Amino acid sequence: MPAERIGALLTAVRERQPLVHNITNFVVMNNTANALLALGASPAMVHALDEVEDFVSISQALVVNIGTLYSEQVAACKLAAVRAHAAGVPWILDPVGVGATPYRRASASALARLRPNVIRGNGSEILTLAQHAQTGQGRGVDSLHGSETAVEAARTLALDTGATVAITGAVDYVTDGKRLAEIHNGHPLMARVTGLGCSATAIIGAFLAVERDAFAATVAGLAAFGVAGEIAAEWAAGPGSLQVALLDALYALDEATLVARARVAERGRV
Amino acid sequence: MPAERIGALLTAVRERQPLVHNITNFVVMNNTANALLALGASPAMVHALDEVEDFVSISQALVVNIGTLYSEQVAACKLAAVRAHAAGVPWILDPVGVGATPYRRASASALARLRPNVIRGNGSEILTLAQHAQTGQGRGVDSLHGSETAVEAARTLALDTGATVAITGAVDYVTDGKRLAEIHNGHPLMARVTGLGCSATAIIGAFLAVERDAFAATVAGLAAFGVAGEIAAEWAAGPGSLQVALLDALYALDEATLVARARVAERGRV
Amino acid sequence: MPAERIGALLTAVRERQPLVHNITNFVVMNNTANALLALGASPAMVHALDEVEDFVSISQALVVNIGTLYSEQVAACKLAAVRAHAAGVPWILDPVGVGATPYRRASASALARLRPNVIRGNGSEILTLAQHAQTGQGRGVDSLHGSETAVEAARTLALDTGATVAITGAVDYVTDGKRLAEIHNGHPLMARVTGLGCSATAIIGAFLAVERDAFAATVAGLAAFGVAGEIAAEWAAGPGSLQVALLDALYALDEATLVARARVAERGRV
Repeated sequence: MPAERIGALLTAVRERQPLVHNITNFVVMNNTANALLALGASPAMVHALDEVEDFVSISQALVVNIGTLYSEQVAACKLAAVRAHAAGVPWILDPVGVGATPYRRASASALARLRPNVIRGNGSEILTLAQHAQTGQGRGVDSLHGSETAVEAARTLALDTGATVAITGAVDYVTDGKRLAEIHNGHPLMARVTGLGCSATAIIGAFLAVERDAFAATVAGLAAFGVAGEIAAEWAAGPGSLQVALLDALYALDEATLVARARVAERGRV
Repeated sequence: MPAERIGALLTAVRERQPLVHNITNFVVMNNTANALLALGASPAMVHALDEVEDFVSISQALVVNIGTLYSEQVAACKLAAVRAHAAGVPWILDPVGVGATPYRRASASALARLRPNVIRGNGSEILTLAQHAQTGQGRGVDSLHGSETAVEAARTLALDTGATVAITGAVDYVTDGKRLAEIHNGHPLMARVTGLGCSATAIIGAFLAVERDAFAATVAGLAAFGVAGEIAAEWAAGPGSLQVALLDALYALDEATLVARARVAERGRV
Repeated sequence: MPAERIGALLTAVRERQPLVHNITNFVVMNNTANALLALGASPAMVHALDEVEDFVSISQALVVNIGTLYSEQVAACKLAAVRAHAAGVPWILDPVGVGATPYRRASASALARLRPNVIRGNGSEILTLAQHAQTGQGRGVDSLHGSETAVEAARTLALDTGATVAITGAVDYVTDGKRLAEIHNGHPLMARVTGLGCSATAIIGAFLAVERDAFAATVAGLAAFGVAGEIAAEWAAGPGSLQVALLDALYALDEATLVARARVAERGRV
């Protein structure tokens, strides 16, 4: 996937300002909305059972994130996912902390069967979701597994669900079961800011709204987010200032910078 | 409305530190609380059905914002609004994204009938609430309409509800159905930070707590917030740093600066 | 308590990266997670009735904060607290705004009887919780009482509940009913950032995860947080930048700096 295409997709997001419907966790709602706004998309956080179906129908993409799930929100996620699939609105699933409890495993697995266009997680999350089995080593929402070790699991999950699967970490991997890409952008300090994985998911959502090839949209979204993170890390004195600088960098990111700095390697067929 | 009166109201907020009860959305709870604290008010975010009536009774103002409404919260908003009106506690309604779904339209309309002292929204929101009709063009929480085009709708809404109505945008308009004021403060970058409209609503709430003329309180609140935003924009490199600088500017804002920079034009009777 | 021991506990948190389970309020979820991450702990925000018991079982400490309580969350707090006590997972209670409403008083009192290892509040909160009586002067979540005046109430509360009790303010006090320590760190501007008391509670939770003497863990947590706050205040232009700088300072804080700057005085037996 040439860097020029990634750059063109950024410009498409800026021009179309897609409405991105988020059903996400309470920890990251503010950052996620700000990341989408800084990028140039139009975010909305809407999770009431009384309106999620109506709202997804007017949106250009849906982001579902189970970070602080509870029964009513899981129901809202399911309603929205079914409607999104029926209406042709692309949607992405972020199975936050799926390995931590039986409730998370059951909820994330049920959502994964509702035809997401993309699933993004860290290595542990993708391994758990692919295995659909208890890891025995609950570890909250942080990843114990490097992203590399989960690539085979990602391929299995992609084939099982029909989704493009992204594993984010020191290196990001994206596969649709056939193609495989690596993204070598980002910065280690990003792991010390809460919810930047969730922001990455939302950014992919914005790219999905303007690019129906989910594999291409996912690669572009992760490259753009990673490049912005790198630029932010050059300015940051720690995780607090990184979070602020990341929003500034997403806002300032232009097509030429993204094309010049994106480090994407496509490995061809898995 | 002379700038000196606006400045005096800022000092009144600082001196009285009013307790401002917020029932607001999950995206902006943190910013809103910080904006109120930076200004000098005492914020509280309280939405449980079991305590909203007790809490509003000890507050000096109530802020109701439907950004991430759900059935239990809408009920809490209604209980709090009824109690506020009965107890003489001024309250302000922010009908976030009212045009997006039937649920929002029904909820916001019901709240608007409970005698808010002020209603603040962007142009699209005020148009929708005034028309009480489906726009057909749902667009999430961002505004498609300039604030100017909604002025006539604001006047109608003010007369229908008895509230002072504020439309915020590139220029802010405030009307109580008879008087009309324009506020020419603020900065375009503020639209790229999530929830600054919600912060403006909460700041008006703080001014309402110290000034019973809702029209004067609304003008003063929007002028103070706009001036702080302008000062912040001078320091900001993008939306991330703007959000940080805005809190610093609200904290540092003094009466003399506000009087010097407030650009308020009263147009007399509408 | 020698400063060297406080420094060693900071290093222990960094090395063990304890999983800290938070059931906390919606205003501070993001800051709290970021404060714990910056310190070196692994935070998780988990409050669903369907999983709190499972989650606390895999955690090294539990933080319970009633800032935006509602009936389902109070139930989740109780389930988690009972499980934590049974499983030997230390837990800390933050009775935010306990004096404001009967619902808060009842909820906080019920939680205080479930054997918390630590209770942290401001002077007004500790006084209310100790008296278990209506103050008559509801005042939201801010403190009307200096921390000094609540020391005797803290001792009573410690003896009644078996918890170490911390009162934070201009000076912090910690007592387990027998020992009493004062911490003279921190900065007045910290009171103008929402939820820094909640962050202090969570930081104590991280120290509890690595130190079973709750008194020592509480003193160490408050000293570390206070020193980081002081360092941040040297960089900050106001409450916005203070919040950012605080996360950077927590991240950069090293054992030597903490040992050099911690100002802890133990008064021996109360």
